[in-house]
Amino acid sequence: MAVTDIATRTWDHNWRLDPIVRSLLDTDFYKLLMLQMIRHLHGDVDATFRLINRTTTVRLADVIDEGELRAQLDHARSVRFAKKELIWLAGNSFYGKQRMFAPDFIQWLSEFQLPPYELHRVDGQFELTFDGPWTHTTMWEIPALAIVNELRARAALRDKGRFALDVLYARAKAKLWDKVERLRALPDLVISDFGTRRRHGFLWQRWCVEALKEGLGSRFIGSSNVLLAMDNDLEAIGTNAHELPMVLAALASDDAGVARAPYRVLEEWQAHYDGNLRVVLPDAFGTAAFLRDAPDWVAGWTGFRPDSAPPVEAGEQIIAWWQAHGQDPREKLLIFSDGMDVDSIERVYRHFHGRVRMSFGWGTNLTNDFRGCDPDGAAGLEPISLVAKVTRANGRPAVKLSDNPAKATGEPAEIARYLRIFGADGRQESVVSV
Amino acid sequence: MAVTDIATRTWDHNWRLDPIVRSLLDTDFYKLLMLQMIRHLHGDVDATFRLINRTTTVRLADVIDEGELRAQLDHARSVRFAKKELIWLAGNSFYGKQRMFAPDFIQWLSEFQLPPYELHRVDGQFELTFDGPWTHTTMWEIPALAIVNELRARAALRDKGRFALDVLYARAKAKLWDKVERLRALPDLVISDFGTRRRHGFLWQRWCVEALKEGLGSRFIGSSNVLLAMDNDLEAIGTNAHELPMVLAALASDDAGVARAPYRVLEEWQAHYDGNLRVVLPDAFGTAAFLRDAPDWVAGWTGFRPDSAPPVEAGEQIIAWWQAHGQDPREKLLIFSDGMDVDSIERVYRHFHGRVRMSFGWGTNLTNDFRGCDPDGAAGLEPISLVAKVTRANGRPAVKLSDNPAKATGEPAEIARYLRIFGADGRQESVVSV
Repeated sequence: MAVTDIATRTWDHNWRLDPIVRSLLDTDFYKLLMLQMIRHLHGDVDATFRLINRTTTVRLADVIDEGELRAQLDHARSVRFAKKELIWLAGNSFYGKQRMFAPDFIQWLSEFQLPPYELHRVDGQFELTFDGPWTHTTMWEIPALAIVNELRARAALRDKGRFALDVLYARAKAKLWDKVERLRALPDLVISDFGTRRRHGFLWQRWCVEALKEGLGSRFIGSSNVLLAMDNDLEAIGTNAHELPMVLAALASDDAGVARAPYRVLEEWQAHYDGNLRVVLPDAFGTAAFLRDAPDWVAGWTGFRPDSAPPVEAGEQIIAWWQAHGQDPREKLLIFSDGMDVDSIERVYRHFHGRVRMSFGWGTNLTNDFRGCDPDGAAGLEPISLVAKVTRANGRPAVKLSDNPAKATGEPAEIARYLRIFGADGRQESVVSV
Repeated sequence: MAVTDIATRTWDHNWRLDPIVRSLLDTDFYKLLMLQMIRHLHGDVDATFRLINRTTTVRLADVIDEGELRAQLDHARSVRFAKKELIWLAGNSFYGKQRMFAPDFIQWLSEFQLPPYELHRVDGQFELTFDGPWTHTTMWEIPALAIVNELRARAALRDKGRFALDVLYARAKAKLWDKVERLRALPDLVISDFGTRRRHGFLWQRWCVEALKEGLGSRFIGSSNVLLAMDNDLEAIGTNAHELPMVLAALASDDAGVARAPYRVLEEWQAHYDGNLRVVLPDAFGTAAFLRDAPDWVAGWTGFRPDSAPPVEAGEQIIAWWQAHGQDPREKLLIFSDGMDVDSIERVYRHFHGRVRMSFGWGTNLTNDFRGCDPDGAAGLEPISLVAKVTRANGRPAVKLSDNPAKATGEPAEIARYLRIFGADGRQESVVSV
């Protein structure tokens, strides 16, 4: 007897939307950590975020229907933090610490809503911008990226038959599990999911997280996705992002203030967080410049997250800097999270094993690797390099230099100014694939 | 909102049995073709069938619970042909022929029930025998094999977690689809599913059949499984089996009668069926002996199905025989069905392409290839060589010599007698893996 729940089926007939963002916790943990500090110290700053598709060959506005995109963005704006989510944020410990989020911040979150967006089609791309208080626009980064990426995947799969989809997901599961089995061979591996922003889709990210939990056990320390961390009793993972030094540098009144911005961010951060949350993201304006001008106390922080230089070189550079500052790297942490996949994880793990504590943030190649999985061999599922970056703060232009010029953002004149301030030491161009 | 149909869930709580055989059409088509002839010409013959596990290292009775086996066999005995199944058998055309099954046969099937079985545990194996009218015991062959194979797979998977099962089936699907993509490269391929008896399970065979239909299109000509053929609007594929010459030889009153049995079967067969159903299964008592003594009219039959000799050698031998009898092999058909997999299909296809019509019956390695798929790497899913053979006819011992002595069945003294009658020309031992 085939059983169909008629009420469910009838409900399904009338689906207006299959929402991509169903919870405001479906975001990266670092957004909440940053948000608490931004609200505390910079509650009056306006910041503009903008979607940037670095893979210009993929004309997103030709692939994704604008109406569908608006419907998903509008739906995300209708979502609020649920009571049980706020209770969990308030009652859970993060990085071993109770009450990470202050009661007044939790109270403030209870009325939080994603702010309005502006959307235009220009030249086959979407111009999607978020303008307003930094405390609100910052929260669009992850949902906006997740929505665009998932809509793109849905478009690629729209005309596929039931069977092709079955084979596609079977292959993707088999492929991921083969990666898990390779990673199992690394006994001291410490790895987490950083794949929310670039994921194929929410359900697929959930499967990937469950796979790592099942397959890697305690070597899988958690997910950057707060909702998945809550639902799977995992640690929520993350610290801070480029937007902090970018905004502070943009707001600086002179070049000296720009030069000091990266360290001011760290001062502010350590007034809020300690321990494993004290992780330096050194590459906003070039790692070489950052290390060259860093005050000694920065060497007392727990670790660094090199995010745009080649990982082995970046790690060696940071280890040498620690040693020059009298630190034992074996008590320090390096977090590698820039386009990692099993090959590079294995290589970096073996290179540094025993010399430094390491942790890997596995993003796009965890949650969006469908290469070779489509039985029709069709295009549209290869990941693209889509980011949402802060472009202005209180109307002033924001800049990211990065260790890789291909990842720089900002107006050309401002980039030139920042290069004069920080220098171009150690910057090297590499292809940005994800 | 998570929706659960409460009635279904409550019903599921109380499952007594998840039946393996749910339809009497869940059998191989050749059983029905043979059954119609057996009933017509040999309705008074008793035949004993017996399960034989040639993979003696796998102790089936230690793996499968006897109570579960009895429950499944009992359930199969409770199944009858459904009215719509008989209407389909009567109304469908098979091999392009209408009314393949006579009305009185269809009428007789409507009351058909699988006969009693005898089951004992001996030395870690099951002694499972079916004794009674040939018209009834013959129908146990496929369901008995399918039941034992699926119970073994269920036992191997009993303690697996939800996730391990998910990965296992994902890998199996990915593996089969990789095979499909290789077979697509053979433009004139003609292939069918012969995997009922050795299948991992019914649902898995159904997926495999759907995969071939989806992936190979018209190159996939159908399934030996009558139920799957009906449900998927495919051709039901099959002709005849060793039990026919084995029973007729066993019933022969003297050695000359035994020697004549293989040709008598063909005479009886061609009185019932024509065209593509006139396929010789030459190896019951050795292909060399069969060809040596065959009357000229056998060369007029459509094709041969070599089933135990190495396929290239067997094909060459049969082609040479056709040529010696003035036949053009390009108008003849060879059906390869003995333990084929993609490697051997490619090799045989390329060897004979353009010289003879070919068709492949893909069995165990289609519907039961889980090698390398279990994330726990556990044993119990590798296919075994399980057969159900006729052992006696009207109380007289039955013998199969085969081209491969490892596939011979029967009492040693009788095998020796048959070897005196037919000779041992061309028999060569090879490992029987499936």
